Amino acid sequence: MEDKEQTSLGSRPMVGGEGPQSYAQNSSIQKKVVEDTKELIHVAIIEKLGLQYITNSGSSNSTFRIADLGCSVGPNTFFAVQNIIDAIELKYHKTYKGNKINPEFQVFFNDHADNDFNTLFKLLPPSRNYFTNAVPGSFHGRLFPKSSLHFVHSSCSLHWLSKVPKEVVDSKSPAWNKGSIICTGLVKEVLDAYSNQFNNDMESYLTARAQEIVGGGLMVLIFPVLPDGIPMAQTSTGKAMELLYSCLNDLAILGLVKQEKVDSFNIPFYFPNAEEMVRIVERNGYFIVEKIQEYLSKSPVISKDVQFLITSHLRAATEGIIKEHFGLGIVEELFNYFQKKLTDDDHTFTKEYTPEIEYLFIVLKRKAFDR
Amino acid sequence: MEDKEQTSLGSRPMVGGEGPQSYAQNSSIQKKVVEDTKELIHVAIIEKLGLQYITNSGSSNSTFRIADLGCSVGPNTFFAVQNIIDAIELKYHKTYKGNKINPEFQVFFNDHADNDFNTLFKLLPPSRNYFTNAVPGSFHGRLFPKSSLHFVHSSCSLHWLSKVPKEVVDSKSPAWNKGSIICTGLVKEVLDAYSNQFNNDMESYLTARAQEIVGGGLMVLIFPVLPDGIPMAQTSTGKAMELLYSCLNDLAILGLVKQEKVDSFNIPFYFPNAEEMVRIVERNGYFIVEKIQEYLSKSPVISKDVQFLITSHLRAATEGIIKEHFGLGIVEELFNYFQKKLTDDDHTFTKEYTPEIEYLFIVLKRKAFDR
Ligand SMILES: C[S@@+](CC[C@H](N)C(=O)[O-])C[C@H]1O[C@@H](n2cnc3c(N)ncnc32)[C@H](O)[C@@H]1O
Ligand SMILES: C[S@@+](CC[C@H](N)C(=O)[O-])C[C@H]1O[C@@H](n2cnc3c(N)ncnc32)[C@H](O)[C@@H]1O
Repeated sequence: MEDKEQTSLGSRPMVGGEGPQSYAQNSSIQKKVVEDTKELIHVAIIEKLGLQYITNSGSSNSTFRIADLGCSVGPNTFFAVQNIIDAIELKYHKTYKGNKINPEFQVFFNDHADNDFNTLFKLLPPSRNYFTNAVPGSFHGRLFPKSSLHFVHSSCSLHWLSKVPKEVVDSKSPAWNKGSIICTGLVKEVLDAYSNQFNNDMESYLTARAQEIVGGGLMVLIFPVLPDGIPMAQTSTGKAMELLYSCLNDLAILGLVKQEKVDSFNIPFYFPNAEEMVRIVERNGYFIVEKIQEYLSKSPVISKDVQFLITSHLRAATEGIIKEHFGLGIVEELFNYFQKKLTDDDHTFTKEYTPEIEYLFIVLKRKAFDR
Repeated sequence: MEDKEQTSLGSRPMVGGEGPQSYAQNSSIQKKVVEDTKELIHVAIIEKLGLQYITNSGSSNSTFRIADLGCSVGPNTFFAVQNIIDAIELKYHKTYKGNKINPEFQVFFNDHADNDFNTLFKLLPPSRNYFTNAVPGSFHGRLFPKSSLHFVHSSCSLHWLSKVPKEVVDSKSPAWNKGSIICTGLVKEVLDAYSNQFNNDMESYLTARAQEIVGGGLMVLIFPVLPDGIPMAQTSTGKAMELLYSCLNDLAILGLVKQEKVDSFNIPFYFPNAEEMVRIVERNGYFIVEKIQEYLSKSPVISKDVQFLITSHLRAATEGIIKEHFGLGIVEELFNYFQKKLTDDDHTFTKEYTPEIEYLFIVLKRKAFDR
């Protein structure tokens, strides 16, 4: 329960508040993901959630506890949570035909301790049928008491690593990631370092959740993945990040940031592919894969706004990390420059480009008999 | 579970952040209260807490759930909570002599949704033996699922009313409180209006907690009370508030605030006396009074700092309400003026004055068999 928060170059929360650069205003791509998975979650709950398992666990009261991990400030998390509750109520209704009163719902919104929870509370739906809690801390460690959760949800968060792998910013290591700020997938040693970090982080994550989720409880995880055989460098996210890197390099040449600073900068996220994720779950051993599905999430916006969309989303997601590494001064300049380069550049993205990202939707069930 | 937060003239959170005017920096009086009650809480837990009652409640896991209601931003709440946990662990150790593993502790920090929870999370003790939650919303309504809490604590918060009683700011009512901004206790109709509001608020509070606390669970409440026969007007708090009122009046004469604004301003707090509180608990019927004690809390500071202490505490507690009613502009001016008047004025407080306040310490146990 101690804070082992990564402070240096670890994953940082999205931009807080409700201003023009905030996550709350710049998360339409993630919102689309929540909408896309609405039906999938409904089906998973109707088909896979064993109610008797959960509510007859011996305690006199029947509270149903739901956690959303990596919730940011809203509003997406509120849609996700309401969707889960609606599906459970429907299932209750179908199963017990009114012979059993609905459980009370207790919802736990988790993110890093320095996430802007004040804004989350401000944006909470005023009329809601659940008890609200915010839980600060990294989901790579324990956050909840033993066997206290029935349903865990996490959307667009698990691809953030707990830290940048040491080797990739070590100029003496064969895994030194010179010439990039992400795991492009083109250099084996760099790929291995990132992949190891993701494997370790996921192992910690699953082991912590295994303690916290009751036997029979469900966990729905949604995060971006790479299509088979496609390296990150070829995806839209990869290309946007490479463009960001070239902007940083240009600013270094202009003397606005130090070249060493650019060389030692890496962004701690990693997109696995579906098989890699399944291997991790099986090796961990506490959960059964109940369902797994890959799908494309088409951007909801029209194409003339796309460049603005890319910049604003990239900024909402990376501004914290950039500030931490380079200082506050550079941020405005960097993203203005990025936006300009994006507009000028016909090569990176075609005119009809829409940022399609492939997502993995995976439903895990906590095995009942091994703690 | 809906937000029925009082927005107009209801109780407002203390000043957030960690700056010179913040509650975090200006709560030494409340800190003293937490320290004073440390031993009392230890004894209450050792003598009155039925462990078997609580941990054998049928569920397989043994999580002990503690809530601090009206926690503000810290640090006092962290001391209070740690003290409770230490006492429970001691009791466990004495009772089971190591034959039963300690429970896991889950702590719920509650305050209004617009309390500065970001600061609370920032100030959290880095190494702590409990799982942390923030719970937004008014403690006059439901905040937790049924039978989910084992121990509730609330210090220096219950004297805040959910709203200013309507009559006292209605110039057509016999209870119109012209000539004061608090319940001085000198006008029967005003006293009745405030007392009614307190009774209603406490009834809501106790009924909500009765749902949430397991049979046998404890609730420790600490708040300022009036010594028998002493009206608020004669207490140090009463005098400080009267001085604040005279400052507001002076600012009205100078044209800096509107006189009507001053006339329609009342601060929604009320100090009951001990018998009144016991009557409320008995009428409500869900709890047994296990212990009740009145005591004086001597201010920890030396007397030359007292004037500064009065001003800064008064400001940390009332700035929110004043801003809401009069607008941001007046705050700085008002408290500078207050500080000056306090320094000039030999009549209000004597030179050796230390702000002694009488507190009620009351331990309630949830009756076991009537839900
Ligand atoms: C892109 S946002 C997704 C927010 C929300 N789930 C949505 O779909 O809109 C990713 C969030 O994950 C959080 N996050 C990343 N790593 C985390 C960790 N180890 N523990 C808790 N939260 C984490 C970030 O702080 C950020 O708020
Ligand atoms: C003087 S502070 C005490 C804080 C802390 N308990 C301590 O001892 O330092 C009073 C707190 O009670 C909170 N409060 C007042 N009315 C409340 C209500 N109805 N629900 C929740 N919190 C409330 C205020 O927002 C404020 O933070």
